[in-house]
Amino acid sequence: MRLRKKKWASPLIKEYTGVFVLENAMLEKEIKINQINALEIGAGKGGFIVGMAKKHKNVNFYGIEQNQSAFALCLKKLINEEEQLSNVKIIRSDVNDVIELIKDESIDTIYLNFSDPWPKSRHHKRRLTYPLMLDKYKRILKKEGKIFFKTDNELLFNDSIEYFKEKEWHFINVDYDYQLDKDDVMTEYEEKFRSMGNKIYRLIVSKER
Amino acid sequence: MRLRKKKWASPLIKEYTGVFVLENAMLEKEIKINQINALEIGAGKGGFIVGMAKKHKNVNFYGIEQNQSAFALCLKKLINEEEQLSNVKIIRSDVNDVIELIKDESIDTIYLNFSDPWPKSRHHKRRLTYPLMLDKYKRILKKEGKIFFKTDNELLFNDSIEYFKEKEWHFINVDYDYQLDKDDVMTEYEEKFRSMGNKIYRLIVSKER
Repeated sequence: MRLRKKKWASPLIKEYTGVFVLENAMLEKEIKINQINALEIGAGKGGFIVGMAKKHKNVNFYGIEQNQSAFALCLKKLINEEEQLSNVKIIRSDVNDVIELIKDESIDTIYLNFSDPWPKSRHHKRRLTYPLMLDKYKRILKKEGKIFFKTDNELLFNDSIEYFKEKEWHFINVDYDYQLDKDDVMTEYEEKFRSMGNKIYRLIVSKER
Repeated sequence: MRLRKKKWASPLIKEYTGVFVLENAMLEKEIKINQINALEIGAGKGGFIVGMAKKHKNVNFYGIEQNQSAFALCLKKLINEEEQLSNVKIIRSDVNDVIELIKDESIDTIYLNFSDPWPKSRHHKRRLTYPLMLDKYKRILKKEGKIFFKTDNELLFNDSIEYFKEKEWHFINVDYDYQLDKDDVMTEYEEKFRSMGNKIYRLIVSKER
C-alpha cells in the first residue's frame, strides 16, 4: 500500500509528540510508569489500534509504524476522535529499536495485521514473523502472552506457521478463512480486502501453553 | 469408555429396526430415496446426533456406531424424544461396510467426535483419521464437503493434522483450545471432559478449497 507523501505530516507529528506520539527516549520513561498491554507492530493508518482502544479502555495500546504518511493518518484519527483516548500511544520508529527498550515478559498481546509479505526469498528475513523476530517477541511477552497475526497472503501465512513451529510457540488457533466476530475491529486494509470477497487468514499463538 | 452390556439392547434394536435403526441392506434402499446430508462416524450414546437433528430439521443425519450398548442408548434417546425425529437414522455396522454403500460425492458433512485415539503405533491404522480412511471419506463427500473432527487427545489431533496434510485436504480451521459456540451440541464425552476443565481440539477441513 503506497501512500502519497503528506506535507502536513511532519509538523503535525511534531505538534503531538508527547501527547499521542512518543519518541524512543520518551518510551523509556513511559514504560517505567505505564504498562504496555498491547503492541501493534505495523499500525498503518490506525484503524485497528484506535478502534480497539475505544473498545478496551483499560488496555494500554502502543502502535509502531515507520511510514510517515500512514503514521500521520493514524495520528489524525487519534486527534479527531470525539472522546480523547488516553490509552493509545504511537511510535514512529524501527520495530527492533522499540523492542530493545521493552522489558522482558512485560507485554500481554502483540498484533501483527497484514504485515508486508515480502514474497521474494531473499527478502523473507524482513518479514515480521521471521524466526529471528519471533525470538524478540518471545522475550517481551509474558508467559501467557499471545500473538494475533492476520493476513490475506496465503504464502506468508503458511510460511509463518512454519516459523512459529520452528520456534516452538504454542498454537491456539489457525484459521484459513477467518469469519468476523461481532467484537472484531478491522484494519482499513482488511475492510477493503473483505469487501472484495477475499479470504483472511488468522493465527493465534501463545508463548507458553 | 467401556459400557456395561445391556440385556434390553438386542430386543429394543430389533423392535426399532426400520424406524430409527437401519441395517446395511436397508441403507441401500434408503439412500436411493433420501439424501445423506451428515454422517457421524462413531455416534456413541447419540447426544451429538440427536441434539443436532433437533436443531437442524432439514438436515438428514446418519449415525454409525458398532458398540451395541452405546448404540442401544442412542436409540433410547431417539425413542424418548418428545417430538419424533424423522431426520435421524442409526446404523450398527462397521464404518467401512457402510461407506461402501454410499455413492461418490453425495455427502455434505462428516463428523468425527472423540474417536478412539489408538495410542499404540501398531494400532494407528485403526484410527478413523488414518490416511486410508481419509481417502474413503473423500470419495463420498461432495466437492465442498467438510469434515468436523473433535478430540481431547492431543497426540491423535497432531497426528491427524499430518494425515490430512498428507492427503492434501483443504484446511479451514485448526483449534487447539476450542471454545463452545452457542449453537454447538456436545457429545456426552465432551460434556464430561469439559466439566473437568480439559481442552478440546477441533479441526475443520474440506475436500476442495
